[in-house]
Amino acid sequence: MKVGLDVGGTKTDAVAVDDSGAIAGRVRLATGWGPDAVTGTVLDAVSALGREAGVDVSAICSVGIGIPGQIEPGTGRVVHAVNLGVEELDLVAATQSRLGVPVGVENDVKAAALGAFALHGGSGSMAYLNLGTGIAAGIVSEGVLWRGARGTAGEVGHISVDPNGPLCRCGQRGCIEALAGGGSIAERWGHAAALPVRDVFDAADAGDARARELRAGLARGVAAAVRVLVLTADVDAVVLGGGVTALGPRLMADVAAELAASAEASPFMRSLRLQERVELLPAGSPAAALGAALIGAARDPEGALTRG
Amino acid sequence: MKVGLDVGGTKTDAVAVDDSGAIAGRVRLATGWGPDAVTGTVLDAVSALGREAGVDVSAICSVGIGIPGQIEPGTGRVVHAVNLGVEELDLVAATQSRLGVPVGVENDVKAAALGAFALHGGSGSMAYLNLGTGIAAGIVSEGVLWRGARGTAGEVGHISVDPNGPLCRCGQRGCIEALAGGGSIAERWGHAAALPVRDVFDAADAGDARARELRAGLARGVAAAVRVLVLTADVDAVVLGGGVTALGPRLMADVAAELAASAEASPFMRSLRLQERVELLPAGSPAAALGAALIGAARDPEGALTRG
Repeated sequence: MKVGLDVGGTKTDAVAVDDSGAIAGRVRLATGWGPDAVTGTVLDAVSALGREAGVDVSAICSVGIGIPGQIEPGTGRVVHAVNLGVEELDLVAATQSRLGVPVGVENDVKAAALGAFALHGGSGSMAYLNLGTGIAAGIVSEGVLWRGARGTAGEVGHISVDPNGPLCRCGQRGCIEALAGGGSIAERWGHAAALPVRDVFDAADAGDARARELRAGLARGVAAAVRVLVLTADVDAVVLGGGVTALGPRLMADVAAELAASAEASPFMRSLRLQERVELLPAGSPAAALGAALIGAARDPEGALTRG
Repeated sequence: MKVGLDVGGTKTDAVAVDDSGAIAGRVRLATGWGPDAVTGTVLDAVSALGREAGVDVSAICSVGIGIPGQIEPGTGRVVHAVNLGVEELDLVAATQSRLGVPVGVENDVKAAALGAFALHGGSGSMAYLNLGTGIAAGIVSEGVLWRGARGTAGEVGHISVDPNGPLCRCGQRGCIEALAGGGSIAERWGHAAALPVRDVFDAADAGDARARELRAGLARGVAAAVRVLVLTADVDAVVLGGGVTALGPRLMADVAAELAASAEASPFMRSLRLQERVELLPAGSPAAALGAALIGAARDPEGALTRG
C-alpha cells in the first residue's frame, strides 16, 4: 500500500493506493499554515486514511507528498512554498522517522503530471498543463518525469507570446501566464468572485467587451502553451488540469476554436492535429495525490519500478 | 571505426571516428540531386574517406547518415528532403547491402544535436539550436536524443512569439523562424548576397533602418527560442549552430543583449542565467557528421552503448 498526498494551499488530499494500483481510500482535510502546521497536516492526513477511510495503516510502505513549491533536486527540501507560508522546510526529515516508511517529495504540478499519466493509460508521452493561479506543465515519457537541469522544466507559463501583451508578475510582457493564468485574469477583471474566471466567461456570454477580451486571452494563452509543448517536447497528448479547468467544456470549446484557427492558417499546424491531442483531466481526478504516491513508492526499493 | 555523413543541400561532409572517439579522417564532396544521386553521394563519400583521407575502409563497422528531411521513425526512409530533390527514399535499403555494414539514418538537426552534445563534453543536457534557412532544435539528455511522439520534437521555429510579427512560410504570424530564419530574413531583405544575413548586419551597422529592424528580429527570435528551450526542457546549455552562426560574435552580442533585457525586466528570467547557458558551436565543428557516426554505431549492436 502506498500513500500519496496533494498538499494544496487550502486543502490536502490523501489517497492510499493498493498493489493493483486501485485507490483503496481517500480523505481530504484543511492544510495548516507554516512549516510546523504543514508537517502536522502530512502526519494527520496519513492517520486520517486509517481513521476515516478504513485503510490498514500498518500496510503502508511509502508516502509521497506533492507540494506547491520548489524542491531541491535529490532532497526532501521544499523552498518558496509561498501559498503555505513555508520559506524552507525539509519535509522528509520532518516526517520520515515519525511515519516509519520512506517519504518522497515533489513539486505538485510534477506529481500531478505523473498521476495524470497513470490515469491516462500509462504509455507514450504526455504533458500535464496545470491551469491554476499560475501556469506550469509537467512532461512525462514512458512513466518517467522530465526533471530538467535546474528545476524549470515545464515552466511554459513564462514564455512570452506577445510583446504587447499584458504585464506578467514575473516582469515580462505577454507571458502565457499573464494571458491565461487564473491570478492574472482575476486581477485584471477586478471583481470579487469564488471563481473569477467563471465570472469572466458569464460576463463575456452576456456581451461585456472587457470580459470577452480576457476570455479570448485565456484561450490564446492555453493554445500557445499546447503548441509550445507539442513543438518542443512532441508529447502525444496534453492533458489540462487545475482550478481553471472547472470551466470544463466552455474552456475546451474556446481552446479548440483557437487551435482550429491556427490549423486553418497553417498546413504545418494542421498536420499536428492539436485539437485531437488536448484533453481535460476528468473532474475530481486525484492526479497529484496519485502521482505523489508513485513518487513515494519510487523511494521504496521494492516500488521503484512503478516509475520506470 | 564508425563513419558519419552530413548530407547537406550542396555539400556532404564525411568523418571517420576511431574507437577512442577521435576523428581519423574527414572529406567533403558535392551532394547529388535526386534519390539516385543522393544514394551515389553516400557511397562515394565512404570510398573517398579511404581514397582521399587514408582511412582503412575494411575497418569501418557502421555508417550513419544525417539528412535534411523527415525520417519515418524506426526506419531508414527519408521523406520531404526538398533541398535534395528527394520526395521519398529508403536510404538504408539503398546503401546498406552495398556498404556491407549497418547503416542508420537521422534528420540532420537531430544528428547535429547528438554530435554537438559529444563535442560539448557528453554529460548533462543540451539543446542544439540550428539557425539556418529554417530554425529547429534537437534536445539531448545524457547522450539520448529526445525523439518525441511524432517527429516534431525541437520544432521550435514554428512557435509564434508575436501575433503581429512577419508572416511565416508555415502560414502563421510571428513564428520564431519568420523572425530569425535565414530564409525569411533573406526574402524580406530582398538583396542578393552570399550570406544575406551578413549583408543585413553590415547595412544595420551603416544605419539602414530596414536592416536594423530585421537584425533586431533575428536577435528577438533566437532569444525567444533559447527561452522556450530552457523553460520547457530545462536544458543545461543551448548551443547555436547552422549557417547563420557564421556571423559569430556579432550574432552572439545581439542575442546576449536581448537576453539581458529580459533578465533586467524579470527577476525570474534573471534567475535562469540564460546568457551563461548559450554558446556557439565552434566554427567548422563537424557536429552533424559526428552525430551521424554515433547514430550509425548505435545500429551496430557492439556500438549501442555510445548512445545510452
